[in-house]
Amino acid sequence: MYRPATADQLLALKVCAGIEELAGSERFAAAEPEMAEAIVEGIGQFAAGEWAPLNRVGDLEGAKLQNGNVTLPDGFAQAYRNYVEQGWNSMAAPAEHGGQGLPFALGCNVLENLGTANFAFNLLPMLTTGAIDAIEQHGSAAQKALYLPKMISGEWSGTMNLTEPQAGSDLGALRTTAVPVTEGEHAGKYRIAGTKIFITWGDHELAANVIHLVLARLPDAPKGSRGISLFVVPKYHVHADGTLGGRNDLRAVSLEHKLGIHASPTCVMSFGDGGECVGELVGAPHRGLMAMFTMMNNARINVGNQGVQIGERATQAAVAYAMERVQSARAGSPDKSAVPIIEHPDVRRMLLRMKALTEGARALLYYTAGQVDRGTLGDAAAAARGECLVPMLKAWGTDIGVEVASLGVQVHGGMGFVEETGAAQHYRDARIAPIYEGTNGIQAADLVTRKLGLENGAALDALFADIVRDCGEEAALTELSDTCREIARWMREDASIDDRLAGSVPFTSMAAVAVAGWQMLRQARAVEAGAAPALAVTKPVTVGYFLRRVVPEALGLAASARGGADLLYAVPAEALAG
Amino acid sequence: MYRPATADQLLALKVCAGIEELAGSERFAAAEPEMAEAIVEGIGQFAAGEWAPLNRVGDLEGAKLQNGNVTLPDGFAQAYRNYVEQGWNSMAAPAEHGGQGLPFALGCNVLENLGTANFAFNLLPMLTTGAIDAIEQHGSAAQKALYLPKMISGEWSGTMNLTEPQAGSDLGALRTTAVPVTEGEHAGKYRIAGTKIFITWGDHELAANVIHLVLARLPDAPKGSRGISLFVVPKYHVHADGTLGGRNDLRAVSLEHKLGIHASPTCVMSFGDGGECVGELVGAPHRGLMAMFTMMNNARINVGNQGVQIGERATQAAVAYAMERVQSARAGSPDKSAVPIIEHPDVRRMLLRMKALTEGARALLYYTAGQVDRGTLGDAAAAARGECLVPMLKAWGTDIGVEVASLGVQVHGGMGFVEETGAAQHYRDARIAPIYEGTNGIQAADLVTRKLGLENGAALDALFADIVRDCGEEAALTELSDTCREIARWMREDASIDDRLAGSVPFTSMAAVAVAGWQMLRQARAVEAGAAPALAVTKPVTVGYFLRRVVPEALGLAASARGGADLLYAVPAEALAG
Repeated sequence: MYRPATADQLLALKVCAGIEELAGSERFAAAEPEMAEAIVEGIGQFAAGEWAPLNRVGDLEGAKLQNGNVTLPDGFAQAYRNYVEQGWNSMAAPAEHGGQGLPFALGCNVLENLGTANFAFNLLPMLTTGAIDAIEQHGSAAQKALYLPKMISGEWSGTMNLTEPQAGSDLGALRTTAVPVTEGEHAGKYRIAGTKIFITWGDHELAANVIHLVLARLPDAPKGSRGISLFVVPKYHVHADGTLGGRNDLRAVSLEHKLGIHASPTCVMSFGDGGECVGELVGAPHRGLMAMFTMMNNARINVGNQGVQIGERATQAAVAYAMERVQSARAGSPDKSAVPIIEHPDVRRMLLRMKALTEGARALLYYTAGQVDRGTLGDAAAAARGECLVPMLKAWGTDIGVEVASLGVQVHGGMGFVEETGAAQHYRDARIAPIYEGTNGIQAADLVTRKLGLENGAALDALFADIVRDCGEEAALTELSDTCREIARWMREDASIDDRLAGSVPFTSMAAVAVAGWQMLRQARAVEAGAAPALAVTKPVTVGYFLRRVVPEALGLAASARGGADLLYAVPAEALAG
Repeated sequence: MYRPATADQLLALKVCAGIEELAGSERFAAAEPEMAEAIVEGIGQFAAGEWAPLNRVGDLEGAKLQNGNVTLPDGFAQAYRNYVEQGWNSMAAPAEHGGQGLPFALGCNVLENLGTANFAFNLLPMLTTGAIDAIEQHGSAAQKALYLPKMISGEWSGTMNLTEPQAGSDLGALRTTAVPVTEGEHAGKYRIAGTKIFITWGDHELAANVIHLVLARLPDAPKGSRGISLFVVPKYHVHADGTLGGRNDLRAVSLEHKLGIHASPTCVMSFGDGGECVGELVGAPHRGLMAMFTMMNNARINVGNQGVQIGERATQAAVAYAMERVQSARAGSPDKSAVPIIEHPDVRRMLLRMKALTEGARALLYYTAGQVDRGTLGDAAAAARGECLVPMLKAWGTDIGVEVASLGVQVHGGMGFVEETGAAQHYRDARIAPIYEGTNGIQAADLVTRKLGLENGAALDALFADIVRDCGEEAALTELSDTCREIARWMREDASIDDRLAGSVPFTSMAAVAVAGWQMLRQARAVEAGAAPALAVTKPVTVGYFLRRVVPEALGLAASARGGADLLYAVPAEALAG
């Protein structure tokens, strides 16, 4: 039933990411149009054919921890093997370590297709990508040579071990320790000891090794976030020649019982129960959190991408159901025979809203990815813009993922509340994305603090100014962008930190809708000029819905964005409880 | 952990339902202030003490169908027995059949407390209430005498059997048959045959009998919705003296596997497998759907009430977690020690939003119930207003239930996505309410068709006019009410049926926010005048949040409410699928 959204992805790559322009650079020359198209079509077919059929069984059976091993339902191992063998894991990874060196935007497309097909399974390559980034950016030459080729191929997977029970959003509170090994075969390495929670795909047997990136404290570490170092800690020791040794002293001690993403094992990981867990320092001592931050932008884009994924899947399921389910005649119609519910106005509204929000988030995703790629090519303004876009995409993209999945349940009516249709799975799976990789509140705080200050405010200001300049006679979009610009100026110049944070989430939504609306408008123009004949009928309508319905709604958030913090603190915490 | 919201309920009963004025009537004289207060406090304590502790086990273990019997987890039977023995089921039922004849508004309070304590369990008395209403309004004197006293006491429970696989929103399509019995002990009754789905608490052994109200077709019935009759079909035959006979030929053949409300058995019911299912006609032949409609208003109010219930429970859980969870120092504070997350501005924002939306929905609930009670006393204008309010309360109330539950997950962060905290259960349970008892799309259609036309439009117009007149200098609320009034006028006078339906859901939300905002404002004034000292600190703040944040957001929906249907039909259905 599920079909990859190839045409809309190609349009977004072309118009929003500017893939053709990227292919004009030496670095991304391989991304020329035929190649890009072949990749998008190829991964779409692969994901729909091999990963999508495992989505429901993954939800029903889920990952299990049995006798110390994490197992997945039948089919996952083979589907992962095929994915690795066909080379999909290596798309956007650096060429010097065996990757194909294609633009990040194309890497996003690989993940989009995998995650639309199978939201929980996609977390395996997604986390591996993050671990690759960390080693590539901060590892030694030896570490890169040892770990990257097999992680890039996908033979080994990667994880990020950050959270501890007392250290979630505040990583500075973490307690896992790393003690230098001074003699023996592991001299120069570190003994790691501690417990990490919420470790996505923390253990499994789909890959031959699991490479854990672990945040821990050295013995002489300062308190707080400036005393955290990054370590690479493999499940199986890796000899200098790349062959595998015995098990390292680490294990998954339990799996979380979660609302959704049941096929993704969320592990409590215990390192060094026997005092023999060995890892290597990555980068400089005490600089682990900085290392995390430099790779976090891409990781957050990948989570924003998940909103697009669940939105696409939920929309397709709802449209299919609405075309098949026959109920009641059209109101006011002389023909009294029952029609497919897609013909009823409010069902139409829900479906069009789902489609418009999903396409809007996709446009924002590829626009953001394109800015990141330009940054890689040395364009500092694009890099700064990319940084501004990341929290918008992560927060709003995942919020619309939840909204679209909820609308999908609604379109299904009673059948949406029973698990058999799959609509409920989307609603459950979608709910994680606003939480992990920095909650959406953390994203919004990032936007109104760090990102607001980039280039003394000029980075964000220029974004809204560009929208106003380019959006012509679209009155609501102009008003929204102007309003965002004013609020940003107020936040920079006049608002207290509390005021900024109080308005941060509504402001982030407004800004995201402004950018997504702008990119949708650019898509509509391109389609009108003949860029995507397959979308000639639908795109003007989804863009119309976005600009005339979604954009005005976002304007309604202005009072919350600039309302300040006084109201929030007018009542003591205890009073809220009573 | 959970505490009943007694003070806010009493305020809503006083200010929004006008309980003291109701008690001034002969009919509701028993509802004098001390009695009302004792009921609200009593049911709150009972529900918190006896039903709330079963909420999680009900979710985990759920209802089960074993060897043809529906079983509930340990504790449910005793908790139901205590509920019946203490007389809580009979509050708002008519005195002539053993009820206490109290206002509907107090009946709403009983359900609110039960449902906040245990959302799924509350469906048992809630459905019984609906069945009582149907028999009371349409049954013969003999039927009332036979069934009502034990249903009102709660010894017997009731169900509504409407939906069939092909007949959901369109009940006119149903196929269950009823054939007159001409001889033997059941002469004068009917043989029922058919399958019904989504039957809430369709079978169980908590009550001694289950009284099914079943919609079916007589042999000579016209097609469609004018050929449906209503039957009362008991699980155990009831002798003329009220004693129970043998099993009737009906059974639960399966339970749905649902997203939430696991403790509420949602049954597929089979009537007449052996050709021996016997029922009695209720009311006139072919008038079953009309009978349903006359009782549907109250049933829909009870579902809107569920939004308040889940909102209250989710808010309390989130506030408690946020006061206990310590993470990060306040941004910009010289004190670098970590604080409970309730001190962070965006967490505050979420909690205050949850509280404001819940209190707003509660204000709307009791205002609506008060109008219904005035209607019972013969006030035609109040009855018409009540009818206008029902779809607003059902749709918006249940929408905010879902939103608040989702915010509750977000406040819990990663702990919200694991099932142990209970936040995820609220998110799952809440999702049914926008669907059943007429989807929220059906509610909105009801508002912009039947209710819009009441008293030639004057009923709805007077509501918005009253708000504008009473809301003084509250600019946003004035603008919202004026806008609602204009849109209603446009819908009545100039809009096509498609245009009205296209804007129906956003219009319904806007109207509900206007009324809830108005009732919140009235509460704030009353608190300022000393009506509820316990709320003197919080109420002005939640009302302030509602009027300055929620109301302006609702204004953002105006473009969708009056945007018309053209955009929705600018693309053929097939194109949405591609």
